[in-house]
Amino acid sequence: MNTPQTAPPEDQSRWPDRRLIDLLSIAVPIIQAPMAGANDAAMAAAVSEAGGLGSLPCAMLTPDRARSEYRLIRRRTQKPVNMNFFCHTPPAIDPEHERRWRSLLAPYYSEFGIDPDKDLPQVNRAPFDDAMCEVVEDCRPQIISFHFGLPAPRLLGRVKAAGCKVLASATTVEEARHLAEHGCDAIIAQGQEAGGHRGVFLGSMVEAQPGVMALVPQVVDAVEVPVIAAGGIADGRGIAAAFALGASGVQIGSAYLLASESIIGDLHRAAIEVSRDDQTALTNLFSGRPARGLINRIMQEIGPISPDAPPFPTAAGAIAPLRTAAETTGSSDFTPLWSGQALPLSRRYASSTSEKASERTIRGESRNPPISAATLTRALAEDALSRLGRLANEVLE
Amino acid sequence: MNTPQTAPPEDQSRWPDRRLIDLLSIAVPIIQAPMAGANDAAMAAAVSEAGGLGSLPCAMLTPDRARSEYRLIRRRTQKPVNMNFFCHTPPAIDPEHERRWRSLLAPYYSEFGIDPDKDLPQVNRAPFDDAMCEVVEDCRPQIISFHFGLPAPRLLGRVKAAGCKVLASATTVEEARHLAEHGCDAIIAQGQEAGGHRGVFLGSMVEAQPGVMALVPQVVDAVEVPVIAAGGIADGRGIAAAFALGASGVQIGSAYLLASESIIGDLHRAAIEVSRDDQTALTNLFSGRPARGLINRIMQEIGPISPDAPPFPTAAGAIAPLRTAAETTGSSDFTPLWSGQALPLSRRYASSTSEKASERTIRGESRNPPISAATLTRALAEDALSRLGRLANEVLE
Repeated sequence: MNTPQTAPPEDQSRWPDRRLIDLLSIAVPIIQAPMAGANDAAMAAAVSEAGGLGSLPCAMLTPDRARSEYRLIRRRTQKPVNMNFFCHTPPAIDPEHERRWRSLLAPYYSEFGIDPDKDLPQVNRAPFDDAMCEVVEDCRPQIISFHFGLPAPRLLGRVKAAGCKVLASATTVEEARHLAEHGCDAIIAQGQEAGGHRGVFLGSMVEAQPGVMALVPQVVDAVEVPVIAAGGIADGRGIAAAFALGASGVQIGSAYLLASESIIGDLHRAAIEVSRDDQTALTNLFSGRPARGLINRIMQEIGPISPDAPPFPTAAGAIAPLRTAAETTGSSDFTPLWSGQALPLSRRYASSTSEKASERTIRGESRNPPISAATLTRALAEDALSRLGRLANEVLE
Repeated sequence: MNTPQTAPPEDQSRWPDRRLIDLLSIAVPIIQAPMAGANDAAMAAAVSEAGGLGSLPCAMLTPDRARSEYRLIRRRTQKPVNMNFFCHTPPAIDPEHERRWRSLLAPYYSEFGIDPDKDLPQVNRAPFDDAMCEVVEDCRPQIISFHFGLPAPRLLGRVKAAGCKVLASATTVEEARHLAEHGCDAIIAQGQEAGGHRGVFLGSMVEAQPGVMALVPQVVDAVEVPVIAAGGIADGRGIAAAFALGASGVQIGSAYLLASESIIGDLHRAAIEVSRDDQTALTNLFSGRPARGLINRIMQEIGPISPDAPPFPTAAGAIAPLRTAAETTGSSDFTPLWSGQALPLSRRYASSTSEKASERTIRGESRNPPISAATLTRALAEDALSRLGRLANEVLE
């Protein structure tokens, strides 16, 4: 019904709201969501070069690696690009909490024959700090986005002094107001549909956080800066709807998971290819913070949210050996399969011959080459403009 | 930003999708959500007469009362109207489950000095049955809507033979397919943002059910019949967004809670007037089935979802005396305050002088006369058309 269509190039300028396009100096108001573990420099560069805003997730990178990934992007494009960082406060070590978590996971350790006393791998999710700020000052990407709030004012000031536009995620109106008051140039309104980590930083109940349809217009009414809709958007219809709600752009994650530049593993890709609308949930089991992913065995057995999971990011430590062991046997039972609720919509873009191919893919018979992130960005933009144009023709005729 | 505007009457026909309008013979593709305990014949008649589809919630009425309410509507309008029924299977009595529930509530019974052994009031939520089917055959409303699935094929056949168009709620794509395959004329895609009871009937995990932004396009792709978007929609922007997603109409509840015909109590009204976007949650405490309402004391203290709440509708029994006692003291601590996530948006329509008045209302200083359901219906439609028109002008110019 909404297969990619070719719109004339001049249509690219006919967005109903140009505030984000103008603010970020991009051609297409689509931000590729930063997805740690799912995208690197190649996808970010491809999306930016196609006119959208590519994002490099830096939370799991060392400063040196962030710098080198950024340089890879710069070899491919000079267009605006986004570096994304986490702003959590690392938790104090709580041996008792850690003990409860290990005890909850102990039966799985036995099942896989893993020594429960073995040393755990270092959990590599660092908050934005002086070292990363130096990377930013060195690289001077056009845009920086933050998740889990904002860094200390001193660091934020340095980022702005480096000339970067600053975006950050809000899961509630209160968070949006906070971000706008602290100098964000645009707000990502992250509806509960979104895949991956909730950006929550002001401590509201996760189950009370609104969906994107309710959140976006309330945020638009509450702040002066442009609003970017995120969550539940994976095709041209969702993008058109976001503009109807008052957003100036969208941030899209799941749809890019099947692009050729995606670095997700085969197990994640296979799970996506058969997923349905009602198969994701928010879970804190993989990191300690609520994040949306496809429901798998550990989420079903422990329950997706457990008070025994220690605070972000430490929960990831004791899960890691189970994930490694299970993946070796071809199982994603302990793998975080981050994805949003609109994931199945993204399959329409996943290969060029669309429906017939995706049916075959579902039956596992063959796979067409995946769509490139650049082609996907253009297809999403064209579909959105075509959708807006069709609405317009019908209303105005 | 989106205050009610007057559009010329001929604009009423310029909806981007006329499938629902034509199917139901209505002028405006807005269904007033049936809200047991919040609306009766007066609101349904007003909305229908204004060109939308008014709904009479019958689940808490006796057949005689349903018939007399329907006649009240018919004295006010001959236009299409909807009678709404529940289709749950009444649970077997489980004394042990009931005992656990009473035991959980025992401290509150003590607090209010209520005898824990007193007989509980009858819980009056009956599923659609032969007696109600006779009412339908007698009244022949143009439209019937069902919640919690569909009645037995024999009853559904009689409803269709009576000439009624049949609508029903789906919370997932699987439920939408089921409803379409069983003869529904249109599907209400109920996003998780919606206030009141989730229409779930095929047993998916409640926390896995999608928001309306993700659900609507997936349902549109899955069924041939028109799709009605419900949840998170309370102004013209949300209606325009629903059409962008492929819906042919919307069902709106919360926005009507502040209309003059609303029969909610003062405590519910007062809670609405100060509510925020992040203050609702799904709870099973008030009925045994998950439903969205403003978070109040019992939801905070027990947690909004409890395995100890017995199955729908029996949980309501033991809560009732607490609600009565608390309300006597002016407290809504035990009152179900059903509302959706877009509730705060509805305040823009709540009085004619809009912003200034609503600020005063929030401060509790004075109250303007509430908007009528007819005026609200027209304002929502005009705002939606105006929003669609603005998008169109910008895209096409």
